[in-house]
Amino acid sequence: MYNIAILGASGYTGAELVRLIATHPRMRITALSADRKAGQTMGAVFPHLRHLDLPALVKIDDIDFGGVDLVFCALPHATSQSVIAALPKSVKIVDLSADFRLRDPEAYAKWYGGPHAALDLQAEAVYGLTEFYREQIRDARLVAGTGCNAATGQYALRPLIAAGVIDLDEIIIDLKTGVSGAGRSLKENLLHAELSEGAHAYAVGGMHRHLGEFDQEFSALAGREIKVQFTPHLLPANRGILATVYVKGEATEIYDALADAYEDEPFVVMLPEGEHPSTRHVRGSNFVHIGVVRDRIPGRAVVIAALDNLTKGSSGQALQNANLMLDIEETTGLMMTPVFP
Amino acid sequence: MYNIAILGASGYTGAELVRLIATHPRMRITALSADRKAGQTMGAVFPHLRHLDLPALVKIDDIDFGGVDLVFCALPHATSQSVIAALPKSVKIVDLSADFRLRDPEAYAKWYGGPHAALDLQAEAVYGLTEFYREQIRDARLVAGTGCNAATGQYALRPLIAAGVIDLDEIIIDLKTGVSGAGRSLKENLLHAELSEGAHAYAVGGMHRHLGEFDQEFSALAGREIKVQFTPHLLPANRGILATVYVKGEATEIYDALADAYEDEPFVVMLPEGEHPSTRHVRGSNFVHIGVVRDRIPGRAVVIAALDNLTKGSSGQALQNANLMLDIEETTGLMMTPVFP
Amino acid sequence: MYNIAILGASGYTGAELVRLIATHPRMRITALSADRKAGQTMGAVFPHLRHLDLPALVKIDDIDFGGVDLVFCALPHATSQSVIAALPKSVKIVDLSADFRLRDPEAYAKWYGGPHAALDLQAEAVYGLTEFYREQIRDARLVAGTGCNAATGQYALRPLIAAGVIDLDEIIIDLKTGVSGAGRSLKENLLHAELSEGAHAYAVGGMHRHLGEFDQEFSALAGREIKVQFTPHLLPANRGILATVYVKGEATEIYDALADAYEDEPFVVMLPEGEHPSTRHVRGSNFVHIGVVRDRIPGRAVVIAALDNLTKGSSGQALQNANLMLDIEETTGLMMTPVFP
Amino acid sequence: MYNIAILGASGYTGAELVRLIATHPRMRITALSADRKAGQTMGAVFPHLRHLDLPALVKIDDIDFGGVDLVFCALPHATSQSVIAALPKSVKIVDLSADFRLRDPEAYAKWYGGPHAALDLQAEAVYGLTEFYREQIRDARLVAGTGCNAATGQYALRPLIAAGVIDLDEIIIDLKTGVSGAGRSLKENLLHAELSEGAHAYAVGGMHRHLGEFDQEFSALAGREIKVQFTPHLLPANRGILATVYVKGEATEIYDALADAYEDEPFVVMLPEGEHPSTRHVRGSNFVHIGVVRDRIPGRAVVIAALDNLTKGSSGQALQNANLMLDIEETTGLMMTPVFP
Repeated sequence: MYNIAILGASGYTGAELVRLIATHPRMRITALSADRKAGQTMGAVFPHLRHLDLPALVKIDDIDFGGVDLVFCALPHATSQSVIAALPKSVKIVDLSADFRLRDPEAYAKWYGGPHAALDLQAEAVYGLTEFYREQIRDARLVAGTGCNAATGQYALRPLIAAGVIDLDEIIIDLKTGVSGAGRSLKENLLHAELSEGAHAYAVGGMHRHLGEFDQEFSALAGREIKVQFTPHLLPANRGILATVYVKGEATEIYDALADAYEDEPFVVMLPEGEHPSTRHVRGSNFVHIGVVRDRIPGRAVVIAALDNLTKGSSGQALQNANLMLDIEETTGLMMTPVFP
Repeated sequence: MYNIAILGASGYTGAELVRLIATHPRMRITALSADRKAGQTMGAVFPHLRHLDLPALVKIDDIDFGGVDLVFCALPHATSQSVIAALPKSVKIVDLSADFRLRDPEAYAKWYGGPHAALDLQAEAVYGLTEFYREQIRDARLVAGTGCNAATGQYALRPLIAAGVIDLDEIIIDLKTGVSGAGRSLKENLLHAELSEGAHAYAVGGMHRHLGEFDQEFSALAGREIKVQFTPHLLPANRGILATVYVKGEATEIYDALADAYEDEPFVVMLPEGEHPSTRHVRGSNFVHIGVVRDRIPGRAVVIAALDNLTKGSSGQALQNANLMLDIEETTGLMMTPVFP
Repeated sequence: MYNIAILGASGYTGAELVRLIATHPRMRITALSADRKAGQTMGAVFPHLRHLDLPALVKIDDIDFGGVDLVFCALPHATSQSVIAALPKSVKIVDLSADFRLRDPEAYAKWYGGPHAALDLQAEAVYGLTEFYREQIRDARLVAGTGCNAATGQYALRPLIAAGVIDLDEIIIDLKTGVSGAGRSLKENLLHAELSEGAHAYAVGGMHRHLGEFDQEFSALAGREIKVQFTPHLLPANRGILATVYVKGEATEIYDALADAYEDEPFVVMLPEGEHPSTRHVRGSNFVHIGVVRDRIPGRAVVIAALDNLTKGSSGQALQNANLMLDIEETTGLMMTPVFP
Repeated sequence: MYNIAILGASGYTGAELVRLIATHPRMRITALSADRKAGQTMGAVFPHLRHLDLPALVKIDDIDFGGVDLVFCALPHATSQSVIAALPKSVKIVDLSADFRLRDPEAYAKWYGGPHAALDLQAEAVYGLTEFYREQIRDARLVAGTGCNAATGQYALRPLIAAGVIDLDEIIIDLKTGVSGAGRSLKENLLHAELSEGAHAYAVGGMHRHLGEFDQEFSALAGREIKVQFTPHLLPANRGILATVYVKGEATEIYDALADAYEDEPFVVMLPEGEHPSTRHVRGSNFVHIGVVRDRIPGRAVVIAALDNLTKGSSGQALQNANLMLDIEETTGLMMTPVFP
């Protein structure tokens, strides 16, 4: 059994980690932190976890990391870097924040509004998109979980950029996301009365921070700078991301590039050509569903990818990476079927 | 007082017409038809209309059109054309179906799967997008209500095509629509358990019939063939359409073209430059909200339009047209404020 | 035209007042206050009101009440009493807070946790349940809007208590309410992710403050102390209250008592015996729907009442009362049809 | 490995069974039936099951029951009895329909509108509320799954009736249920546009068929006839039942009776005294949460129980029973944590 600590356990990704690890055969949770809620039980903070026998929430400083094998760090952006810098070097870390996603310090400063406080760690961190960084993750001490939107767009696009089957200057990602991606924070626009029964875009025009990840990853893959157009929208739903990606290329080549790339992947499901996914059919699971449809305009296609932002988009991805880092079979604890309806 | 008949009153657009006309100072409803529900009261079919004193539902054949000034025809596609052909010529008609939207019989046959049964009426019909066909509508006997998605996209794009400020070959409309646009029909994918808490695209790749309207209207406006890319998505919401339109052009020119076009329009609200709308803020009203945002990629912009599919997208539009046809002040009965939250 | 000021315009009841008054033929809004949002436009705070020409939000102290005929006070509980005490005596006031609902200072102190700061005004205030206090409201300077839950329960029960057709010691009100009744406040349990897709009770066991109103009103009506059992539940919906009321008595007598009481009421709709209402069919309107069903256990019945908490439950009720106070026809501006779906 | 057949696999309870069994270590699905969808894959009918390697849907007559150890029968009411009568006697059966719940043929005829076609089987069937029929279920060949509402009410009430701590003639169950309990059937009132954003009661006055189960079980337990009052309401949510139960008795005795009864139960969670549950915190799981709150009126209390109708209320219960019947550890495959948010 590996001993696991979760820092920032009072947020949605923290709770999702607990949900997944609770039935994991080779991990046990030995410490849970939540600074403002220290002293409370996890069952009080998240009543759906009441039936579990969990350690009480404590402050990070009160955790003894001596016996801990791996830490999931689900803290807010910018907080993570100093906390992780202070952890003993013997501990493996999967960070769910944005702090270690961007390899270029200038890109980090641009998207996150200030200098990075742990540049040495940033250099060491491996980008956590499992299917594409599997071998480096296996050997990593620090893995940086991807943005949930960034993950969804990359599942749709990486094989196409790698295979050279689409026009690299004409990529548009129109994305729809459920509200849990915004976390458990008290913001007016996240209230039920403000959010239900409608839709709106946000961070329009190239303002969303996950563009930093798209720029970094797609440019590295193509060997030249790529800038995509990206508009996220907020859905009246709790979980799920749907990325509708507009590309220029032949639909069949596009489909084949994706099917080849994901042929042996346990969590990526290619739908039959011409079909496309719904977020409802991946809810609560670690699966990604991808579809390709040819457009009526020759030479254009639509690629649509769906995943659950809390699972495959963050905590499920984190556990998948932790399995690799601890030399556990990659799919352990992650094969649960989506919950529908 | 004008005497009004509503054919197909047991569907959502029929009920929405009753809602609007109930407080209209110059119209009274004298006949309501619903073939399968003939004999029932409107209050039994739509309990939210219980407080109104309305004629009972009858079959169309049982209506005496003698004293009727104007008919709203909210029947299913293909049914409308034969019913309207049989109406007395003295009656004005606003049709909410798709039957008279496409002027080219071949386009009709292509998108609706068969020949049109009333080609002479089709030639006479005026396309009902009020802001752009106002003068013809005033003199028309038969007005063809637009598709709700088609209306939303046109509000975002017509002034841009007319002003020549965007690349006509690079238009993408990614649209999100509430479920009431699909009507009160018993389809598995419209069940609450299937639709809530998620999102999916439909009619992907250029299959949606409203493309017939986009093709017709945009091509006529530009004086050459235009084909847009159009992907509708179904939202877990009852009312509201959000069209996210990707265009190539200068954001300021685009904003100015829209602001100029809608300067005197009572129902079209241009948001300040850089802001963009939400469907929640037009719910239950006849308003369209439009925003423009410059993209980080030079020469690109996003135009976002929002309206209520049942009001401005169909029944509100129909009433606005009827007001014009009966020489009533255009905004009469339509200035209600959106319902939020 | 009467000049109207709305204090506390940045909350949901404030916005609902603006929605209703915007098309009122005899009122115009001349001042809007919102202390923390002073300086902003109403359209920025509530984009669904963008199309209206409204005064900007100011602090209460910056309002000149000289030309104001009537003030709607939509401030938080406890704040209202001091604000209203400071208003000129020439101004009529409809208060939407709980501050003037309870006539007994001890009852106020018990339910609201402290002494009342304006006991003379409390003595003057008329309880605002229009159908039962109509004549006093007509002559009142200060009307205290009722609790939205308290209103719903009273519509179901007052005629039964008055007619003596039910057992006064065996009344249970199981109530389901939408979330807008909790206001636009930043509380974790009001987030979409916490509230959607489920239900829970709150203030269980006789803790809800609206019990103060039930106790006061029902006891006064019966001429002896009455205590009801009352359990509210929070629904994943924005608007609407459904009160399921369990009583002991003969269903027919119960139905008749209600039908008699509401025979001439413009906003109270009795459903046919055996039918019962849905909140969806009163949404956005000032109507109350009431149904009565006989239980299989002899001598028991269920009375169900539905209304929109923001309209008939607060802002619509407030406008109805204001109409009376200003000698305007009572239904003016309030006959809008419910919005469904 | 036990070989499992699921009859009626195209409904929600069928799909939920597949979800649960997919990761069960000692069961494998060898046959799936769905008469109208025979020939289709399960992944086409339920895309959330796409990643599983499942047998195609067939007609019941095409199943070879030779190697089948246990059949889950998720067919509509009335269909089940003839199908089950025709199964080989060597096969164990868990029926999820209402066909074998009522032991008294007259009660069956009364609630289900006609005579029972397999009275011998009805005599043999064991009522499937696991916690109270565990030993009989272990030895049963045919177990009758309970109604989901009936289960929820019984979890709240059985220990109280058995312990004699409440007034047996004054029990009211006000229940709120998500829509998936109504199945995947095409009914107007189950459409998203009809159901979302509101609430209504149904089967008011003692009409709901699950009253047959309450009558049977509670009367047997008390040794005399008991009739409860029961009003179900439909929630705009997919999963979850909340039963608010009004009883007369001492809250502490009530709490203790429940706590004693469920002390060793793996799936029944008693909340601390004074707390009460939410359906959101059991979603997708096999847990029941129960709370007790003392009312302000002496001698009265409210008991609230929450469970997921598709899991603990039907398919999870069915699997729990199947585990017992096959001598598998009872909790196998059922310890998944609820999915929140």
